[in-house]
Amino acid sequence: MAESRIRAVQAKVYIRIEALEMDGIDKNHKATWIWYPNDYELWLHVQVSMKRQFRGYICPPFWRMDTAYSNVMFRKKLKLERPESLTLSVQGAFVVHLDGSMLPMPYERKPITSVLIPAGEHELVVKVFMDTAVPALYAAGETITSDGTWEVTCHNGQWLNAGSDRFDDPASPPGAFPFAYETVHPVHVAKAKGTVLVDFGQETFGYVTFLELKGRGVIRLYYGESMEEALAGEEAETSDELEIDFTEPQSLTTPVTRAFRYVQIRADEGLTWQSVQHEYEYLPMERRGSFRCSDERINRIWEVAVRTLQLTTMEFMYDGMKRDRWVWSGDAYQSFMMNNYVFFDQAVTRRTLVALRGKDPVNMHINTIMDYTFYWFISYHDYYLHTGDLAFISSSYPNMLSLMEFCLKRRNTDGMMEGYPEDWVFIDWADMEKRGEVCAEQLLFCRSLEIMGTFAGLLGDGGNEQKFTDLAQELRSRIFELFWDEERGAFLHGRLDGKINDRILKYPSMFALRLGYLNNAQSELVARNVLLNESVQKITTPFMRYFELEALCEIGQQTHVLHEMREYWGGMLDLGATTFWEEYDPGQPAELQYDMYGDKYRKSLCHAWGAAPLYLLGKYWTGVRPEASGYSQYRVEPCLGGLEWFEGTVPTQDGEIKVFMDRSRIAVFTNAVGVGTLRFKSETYPETNEGEIRQIGSGEYELELVRPAFAYEVRIKHPISE
Amino acid sequence: MAESRIRAVQAKVYIRIEALEMDGIDKNHKATWIWYPNDYELWLHVQVSMKRQFRGYICPPFWRMDTAYSNVMFRKKLKLERPESLTLSVQGAFVVHLDGSMLPMPYERKPITSVLIPAGEHELVVKVFMDTAVPALYAAGETITSDGTWEVTCHNGQWLNAGSDRFDDPASPPGAFPFAYETVHPVHVAKAKGTVLVDFGQETFGYVTFLELKGRGVIRLYYGESMEEALAGEEAETSDELEIDFTEPQSLTTPVTRAFRYVQIRADEGLTWQSVQHEYEYLPMERRGSFRCSDERINRIWEVAVRTLQLTTMEFMYDGMKRDRWVWSGDAYQSFMMNNYVFFDQAVTRRTLVALRGKDPVNMHINTIMDYTFYWFISYHDYYLHTGDLAFISSSYPNMLSLMEFCLKRRNTDGMMEGYPEDWVFIDWADMEKRGEVCAEQLLFCRSLEIMGTFAGLLGDGGNEQKFTDLAQELRSRIFELFWDEERGAFLHGRLDGKINDRILKYPSMFALRLGYLNNAQSELVARNVLLNESVQKITTPFMRYFELEALCEIGQQTHVLHEMREYWGGMLDLGATTFWEEYDPGQPAELQYDMYGDKYRKSLCHAWGAAPLYLLGKYWTGVRPEASGYSQYRVEPCLGGLEWFEGTVPTQDGEIKVFMDRSRIAVFTNAVGVGTLRFKSETYPETNEGEIRQIGSGEYELELVRPAFAYEVRIKHPISE
Repeated sequence: MAESRIRAVQAKVYIRIEALEMDGIDKNHKATWIWYPNDYELWLHVQVSMKRQFRGYICPPFWRMDTAYSNVMFRKKLKLERPESLTLSVQGAFVVHLDGSMLPMPYERKPITSVLIPAGEHELVVKVFMDTAVPALYAAGETITSDGTWEVTCHNGQWLNAGSDRFDDPASPPGAFPFAYETVHPVHVAKAKGTVLVDFGQETFGYVTFLELKGRGVIRLYYGESMEEALAGEEAETSDELEIDFTEPQSLTTPVTRAFRYVQIRADEGLTWQSVQHEYEYLPMERRGSFRCSDERINRIWEVAVRTLQLTTMEFMYDGMKRDRWVWSGDAYQSFMMNNYVFFDQAVTRRTLVALRGKDPVNMHINTIMDYTFYWFISYHDYYLHTGDLAFISSSYPNMLSLMEFCLKRRNTDGMMEGYPEDWVFIDWADMEKRGEVCAEQLLFCRSLEIMGTFAGLLGDGGNEQKFTDLAQELRSRIFELFWDEERGAFLHGRLDGKINDRILKYPSMFALRLGYLNNAQSELVARNVLLNESVQKITTPFMRYFELEALCEIGQQTHVLHEMREYWGGMLDLGATTFWEEYDPGQPAELQYDMYGDKYRKSLCHAWGAAPLYLLGKYWTGVRPEASGYSQYRVEPCLGGLEWFEGTVPTQDGEIKVFMDRSRIAVFTNAVGVGTLRFKSETYPETNEGEIRQIGSGEYELELVRPAFAYEVRIKHPISE
Repeated sequence: MAESRIRAVQAKVYIRIEALEMDGIDKNHKATWIWYPNDYELWLHVQVSMKRQFRGYICPPFWRMDTAYSNVMFRKKLKLERPESLTLSVQGAFVVHLDGSMLPMPYERKPITSVLIPAGEHELVVKVFMDTAVPALYAAGETITSDGTWEVTCHNGQWLNAGSDRFDDPASPPGAFPFAYETVHPVHVAKAKGTVLVDFGQETFGYVTFLELKGRGVIRLYYGESMEEALAGEEAETSDELEIDFTEPQSLTTPVTRAFRYVQIRADEGLTWQSVQHEYEYLPMERRGSFRCSDERINRIWEVAVRTLQLTTMEFMYDGMKRDRWVWSGDAYQSFMMNNYVFFDQAVTRRTLVALRGKDPVNMHINTIMDYTFYWFISYHDYYLHTGDLAFISSSYPNMLSLMEFCLKRRNTDGMMEGYPEDWVFIDWADMEKRGEVCAEQLLFCRSLEIMGTFAGLLGDGGNEQKFTDLAQELRSRIFELFWDEERGAFLHGRLDGKINDRILKYPSMFALRLGYLNNAQSELVARNVLLNESVQKITTPFMRYFELEALCEIGQQTHVLHEMREYWGGMLDLGATTFWEEYDPGQPAELQYDMYGDKYRKSLCHAWGAAPLYLLGKYWTGVRPEASGYSQYRVEPCLGGLEWFEGTVPTQDGEIKVFMDRSRIAVFTNAVGVGTLRFKSETYPETNEGEIRQIGSGEYELELVRPAFAYEVRIKHPISE
């Protein structure tokens, strides 16, 4: 049976995408590819999670990967004034039913043509099956357009609104994420016998292309985020190997995206090429936020941090691009916060939150980490505060409920959460007791319960609003009762087997502070006894430094934090960083700077949490933050914090807020839609060009920002102490 | 970039099956492919469920299809006396860890060779990723063999014993089910202008092959279970269309399996072939059971029923082979019962039960049908009774618990189950009220609860044993209290909105009888007032006739049932049936016999439940049934039931039980392992060649069958009345 010479057709069963006749489609109607909600994101998450490699081997995540349902059914009620020609493109095998009867599609052994739907009211149903990609549908007619108003079921007894995202070409079904590409040429190429070192000038991500490549043999590419790594050859974290047999010169691009600045190329003799270039793969995002100030070191930090965040923001928010390339809830949470001050790309936030959650049943914490489950809830609240997008909250709410249900089932008899044997209680890479009731975990859990109460209320789920609010209140009381030590002015670490662990670490106190759980007196106690107390164990990881510096800013220590930024992030710049690192210890000798987890070049030199200054400068110098959903209310509380002057822009859902400040003047231009409040200090009574300044304390003032698209100016005398 | 001319290798990432060097493998150790338990079965279920077509279009099931986890991890503790060479074959990308460290595999751009594992105690871990088939592993060394003792996790915090089944060739990973094939030649070929009618002599299943096919054009095949269907052309339920362009003669086989006896072939002019044959695809099963008797019509019924069951028993127990080709819990339940009296192939039962259940979360009833959920539980109990296989019960127990939990959550305030809007309350295609509390459903639910109590007890889950047993007892009391009408000697139909529906239908009474819920007095009432009462609405569907005839046998009505068999099944034989049908109404005119669901040839002429006589003759004439798990205790209660004589064989887990009976003699040869009890009637005191006969009632006797592999003979005088 000569398979290659015959085409045995399974009559009329379409199992591939077919090209389309697009006649009669109104181009103003934007039809998009639709799918079972979240299923493209979950499928994509599986694909990208498997790109991590170690020395050429796969390095799969150690959490369950869920993917798309294979058997789904779309439906749409139609009301047609006249007959309409409907054209379909489907990823998968499919069948169409109109008003309960199968609609035979014209079939003439050529691409699908459109079918005529008669005038009148109809229910259109399309059943789709696909088990190697996301079952998806594109439908377009004169008035008919597939979009999020279509419903879909995976045959679980529920109809949901279909999901969709940026796929609107009927010939390109949802598959690999549609990135942007840019060709980048090396800034330097150094050749030696049998080896070439290529430098692209800064950290980057994507493919390497050989032009006019010819000959026969093997090319080995050793990627380096540092020159040292590229030169280390087999010791480099990532490498590729290409087998070539080209008699005519042609181009060749490497098969997998890599993160690197340098590439060492070792080619067998006889292989030649004209040049090497790089296809930079990236998510196109507008840089809506900005920050410039009197300190050039800080300006450079801001720029390098933006590149760090740009590179780690792709299909999802990744931790770092060289090694894990995984989606981690804690890392992503910090990326979301930074993203809100620079790109304000909320689509990637949504994709990331969906991917992290997976499907029911919940058997494990997100990323297996208890605290990462709670960061997921907290991220949702942040998202809502910045966007006001209740529709997304609503679509995620069932998944929130089942994840919270999982948590509630794991409470101990005192209503608190302890790690199960299979759980990872993380908090930080640091010496601490992680068994039993860890106070920091309870604080995050409590916040998650409050958020569930809030969302339940917003979505009209009164029973759960009451339930979660009550649970949160009880838990908060219990936390304070058990762990708050008024005398020592700090939270104690935890409790194990009924015995309080009275060690004082920074985590619970700084968490309580940032969650707003402390009154003024408690905040001051915590500031003095914990945050600024040199005898408390220092935080050394960038992940927790993020929250620590944030907490220090919350208690007005911007000047101190600025100094830290200049030292820590400036230190990386001094070592040549073009993106910020997973970890940095200024005390380490140069030859150990790239070492991590016991391997010489394991450290990621482009790590999302390294971009923390974006968030800190945006929130605590520019001083802009939403105070109600979607920036409907917001605060502008600028602070020089060690600078002579700065000017910053913060993006919002509906416009930007620009802030300038020096010692004598604050200028705020806002075309955000909500109501803002400018809060500032001045040694003398300030003057303004608009509105009425209110004094709210000694040397403290407020001004309502209510005129749309208006440039407010306030004359101040800035306290010298700051 | 000339893709076809280069091989851009992603270094050392194996994503396909690699051939193996099998040196040093002890062939006595049977390594098998292993996978996450149930995942091959679920993946396979998805594949086969999509084979249903209607007029060339897909016809996907209307229930959720779950599939394999893509990201799994196997582990095995090793204790090697000397170093051992381990050879791996993997379906998916993989990486090996030994004692926590990655084990680089030799990689020389050729098939995987074995790696050396040093002597001593080790933990071997293999992480596998595959999202388009079942991630699976085959490992073999001198002593190392992949099998069900390996553990596997989908990263949900639990390690389970790996699943495996009949795949033991390292070069053939688990994919399409490995069926057997046989070439079948037509018994008749009739040619007319432009068309050929081929008759394969009986209902069959598989592919059609053209030998020495040559020319250019289209061949259309119209399959017919009846000659009428094949001749109906486009009206036939299934058809194929082949595009041919062969300049040299060659063979061609159709692409999809079909169920048929006849094929009409219409070929374009210029196409020629030497002959047509058929590749019969089947599950190889030993026909361990048998039945022969004095009535040739019954003998023929038994043979045709065996073929019906053979054809519908494939990857799973299917309803019928032409149309649905789906796995339905109710249909499968009856197939299991028949299988126990003929093939005793328990692997297909296990596969079917696993496929039906899918994965968590449970959102809907099995096949969306409430009663089908209960049949699933009851099937498990039957399976256990016949096999004593507690290991399978144990591995399925978590899935039983979550399905029962789903049921328990749906009880109303009286602890009974009513259909939710998305549920299908089926029972039977018949006029009846299906809303509210349907008595028949509560009886099945009650039995399911009892079974859960039994299994919980066997598995040492004491809490649930008590819980389910209590729930079952409460429910049983409530059912009798509400629905048992002592005066009318029958169960009432149900209750809707608090109001009893006092209609008497056969279902609840016959269910209660077959579940053993009735005492002798109640059984007699039900027999007289319901089962043998001509004024009660007749059961017309073969599905429910199955249970009705069973119930009639339970009350000793074998002679009546024999008459029914001769009429109903014999009626189909008279119409030329070579397998039994989905439905048969002797009153219908011939031209409507193949009509169903409003289509002229929709009726399946090879439908599993049509084989009911296999079960009835085995259980109620031969009279063999297990009375404790795995036939450790069994009963032999033969009955002539209208026959002059019969001889039958019933397979058990560990041997066969052969029974002969005529009016003067019962002979039982048993090499089953358990303890049997022969129960029979005789007008005179019987004699035996072994053991002591006990009288248990007037003319009723018992004899213990304890001698292994012994031929017992009992002389009786059979009551003339029977």
